[in-house]
Amino acid sequence: MTTYDLVILGGGPGGFDAAIEAAGSGLRTALVEAAELGGTCLNRGCIPTKLWLGATEAVDELAAQAKMRVATGDIHIDFPALQSRKDKYIAATRKAMGLRLAALGVDLVAGLGRITGPGSVEVQTSEGTKTLGCRNLLVATGSRPGSFPGLTPDGAKVLDSTGLLALAEMPGSLIVVGGGFIGLEMAQAAHRMGAKITLVDALPRLAGAEDPEVSKTLESVFKRQGWDLRLGVKVASVKTRGEHAVLTLEGGEEVVADCALIAVGRKPNTADLGLEALGVTLTGAGYIQTDAQLQAAPNVYAVGDVNGRMLLAHAASHQAHYVVERLLGHISGPYDSGPVPSILYGAPEVFRAGLMAPVAQDGAKAQGAAVLVSRAQLIANPIAQAHAATAGFVKCVWREGKIAGITAVGAGVSRLACFATQIIQLGWTREDAEAFMFPHPTLDESLKAALLADKEAV
Amino acid sequence: MTTYDLVILGGGPGGFDAAIEAAGSGLRTALVEAAELGGTCLNRGCIPTKLWLGATEAVDELAAQAKMRVATGDIHIDFPALQSRKDKYIAATRKAMGLRLAALGVDLVAGLGRITGPGSVEVQTSEGTKTLGCRNLLVATGSRPGSFPGLTPDGAKVLDSTGLLALAEMPGSLIVVGGGFIGLEMAQAAHRMGAKITLVDALPRLAGAEDPEVSKTLESVFKRQGWDLRLGVKVASVKTRGEHAVLTLEGGEEVVADCALIAVGRKPNTADLGLEALGVTLTGAGYIQTDAQLQAAPNVYAVGDVNGRMLLAHAASHQAHYVVERLLGHISGPYDSGPVPSILYGAPEVFRAGLMAPVAQDGAKAQGAAVLVSRAQLIANPIAQAHAATAGFVKCVWREGKIAGITAVGAGVSRLACFATQIIQLGWTREDAEAFMFPHPTLDESLKAALLADKEAV
Repeated sequence: MTTYDLVILGGGPGGFDAAIEAAGSGLRTALVEAAELGGTCLNRGCIPTKLWLGATEAVDELAAQAKMRVATGDIHIDFPALQSRKDKYIAATRKAMGLRLAALGVDLVAGLGRITGPGSVEVQTSEGTKTLGCRNLLVATGSRPGSFPGLTPDGAKVLDSTGLLALAEMPGSLIVVGGGFIGLEMAQAAHRMGAKITLVDALPRLAGAEDPEVSKTLESVFKRQGWDLRLGVKVASVKTRGEHAVLTLEGGEEVVADCALIAVGRKPNTADLGLEALGVTLTGAGYIQTDAQLQAAPNVYAVGDVNGRMLLAHAASHQAHYVVERLLGHISGPYDSGPVPSILYGAPEVFRAGLMAPVAQDGAKAQGAAVLVSRAQLIANPIAQAHAATAGFVKCVWREGKIAGITAVGAGVSRLACFATQIIQLGWTREDAEAFMFPHPTLDESLKAALLADKEAV
Repeated sequence: MTTYDLVILGGGPGGFDAAIEAAGSGLRTALVEAAELGGTCLNRGCIPTKLWLGATEAVDELAAQAKMRVATGDIHIDFPALQSRKDKYIAATRKAMGLRLAALGVDLVAGLGRITGPGSVEVQTSEGTKTLGCRNLLVATGSRPGSFPGLTPDGAKVLDSTGLLALAEMPGSLIVVGGGFIGLEMAQAAHRMGAKITLVDALPRLAGAEDPEVSKTLESVFKRQGWDLRLGVKVASVKTRGEHAVLTLEGGEEVVADCALIAVGRKPNTADLGLEALGVTLTGAGYIQTDAQLQAAPNVYAVGDVNGRMLLAHAASHQAHYVVERLLGHISGPYDSGPVPSILYGAPEVFRAGLMAPVAQDGAKAQGAAVLVSRAQLIANPIAQAHAATAGFVKCVWREGKIAGITAVGAGVSRLACFATQIIQLGWTREDAEAFMFPHPTLDESLKAALLADKEAV
């Protein structure tokens, strides 16, 4: 039995990045992966969705100009060709990841890992059971699509995100259950490829985790594109009936489409890992509870979706970096994520980092601190005008004279992400914004305008 | 005669921003503008060019996907409709600027201003000559297209940038003399609207002020698009001959096209201002010499193109802010631009701020300091892959372990501008880059990859 400095369960963004950094720093490292390197993000999540959205962006750009009567034309997406390009890209990336692990001397163990006790992991590989000893264990097993009773993908016409991304043919009409980021990105890509969209959510607004004004902008844009939005309605069931997917609302109304996507959140991959053998605590939803050092038990860490802190690939990578730095003795304090940027792609895009106005307001009420907001509309920005995509805004949240949060919605606002995250981290004041040389003309100047706008109570 | 705290000559980005800030802070302010509010940038430069590029972006997006055989289709730009949209947008923006000046109590004086002595400006208005007294004078008269003997726009088929932007019909073929940013942006927009491009420059490479590797990338992309690039060649003349523009090279070879654009740099608007009355010094090329406080003479400041420091709209605005802050007594030290971001729009885009590698190398040799570079290719980035636009790179210049300059070329790299400028200003180390949470997947991760790549000697 080989004993490793670090055994990692899961080869997604968190696990892979930890393996590369640990091995690169001289730690003897094993990576256990039951399916494919790259995890959900590469194989069934962020990356294939972005390939769909990137390939179809011209459709939206053209539509915006056509609406201004500046352009005419039409664009046809060859969906099988796009799927083949996507699959090839993902396979090539997986291969490159494997080569990188090998070059750094990481032992990649293909199979389902199971903890048998402190310092010991058993893996069911195709060549039989392997036992790995470990001084430290990192659980980075991620999450999978969630479902509710009556809302269970059946693999026929009712699919989860994994199923939709694997389709051979784009359906002519699509029911999307769930107006969160996954549902919205996939619905946009499908719409650009010609699918008629019906989107249903039990919440009364799209992107329910975001600022309500963001929801309003999204709803108005998608309605104008002809989506059938049904918000604040309860779904009784979604089922395959012959060649169609049939959505039945609680009132009995039926919606029929070629296909349905269930995108109602995700659940952690914590079953069957043997976590009980280590005394790890799971939350009600099944996430691994971690302390301020991201530890779930002595010498056992959990990063990424599986700890439920923030279901974002870059959050997993950031946590992984912390854990490896800690194992190397480079840092000892608690984990600090700083402001975490999140992005919805498509047109419009949504970006957020730091405090969100309604949340800040609640917190402020509790703390008695003054929270103010300032904002700018994209319609005043020349680049938004150039792209004829002027719906949206940038909103800044201020606390004690310093910037504490930024939210934006509109075409291209993801370009603000790094800079906005950084200035929240720096706690910029109005004077900092005045002194900075924003390049002109840029969409970024909408952030400048928001930073310099009059502040109002939330 | 009214005496103002500040009289400003020129209503472009520098002059307008200075007027708004000065009047907003209580200074009695007059703005003298001989032509249109907004200056070159709004009326004949950055903004109309970006409206052309924004309106035509779908053409390039589609072409990239078509090359991958993922999409087919065609797009027709209605050029008269685009011109009309552009003209309306510019007129509306000018109107809004005028209203803003009025609301703040700025006296807008329409006419050519001429300095008659310290503290006195005469303006030839449509209602006769007005005399303005001033405690402080700000010269922000900008620049105009330059020309050389044999390369003089004739207003028929040989045009400068102003003439090209005013065309009623997009020519089927276009000769562009000058491979700088103005020539490249206009050539790209024209190409997307169907014009066959011949681009000529006396320099052996495109974008001659940029990193030579940037030039190489641009040349390879534009050649693949079918441009006829003639670099390192000397032009004898460009003339209108009947319905065509005829370019004659020094060897005698002729190139004929429907139209020719002369984009061989710009020259400052310093003639006929009466600057000699104040003892202001002009450089050889006619720019106003300014000291470390942007002063050209006691109580006389010059900002923007006219001082020749940096011919960029945002540099003018940044300098204007400094001057007003100084007049208000808020600051007293010398002007510090910090790293100045510059952007070429189109596809690819170019971004640069801070030290450039070859320049840094020269400087380093002189100073004996170690300058290193690190880089990442866009082809490794999933967003670049999604847009099938993978030509390009991000390059970091390091000095004494801190980031001192960033250059990038490729589709969408302008999104790095603010963030890159900021981290140069902060003097990020490798550890700062490791600790920052870059959102995934983003084109911004190409900057992360470049920051974390191995450093090499220049």
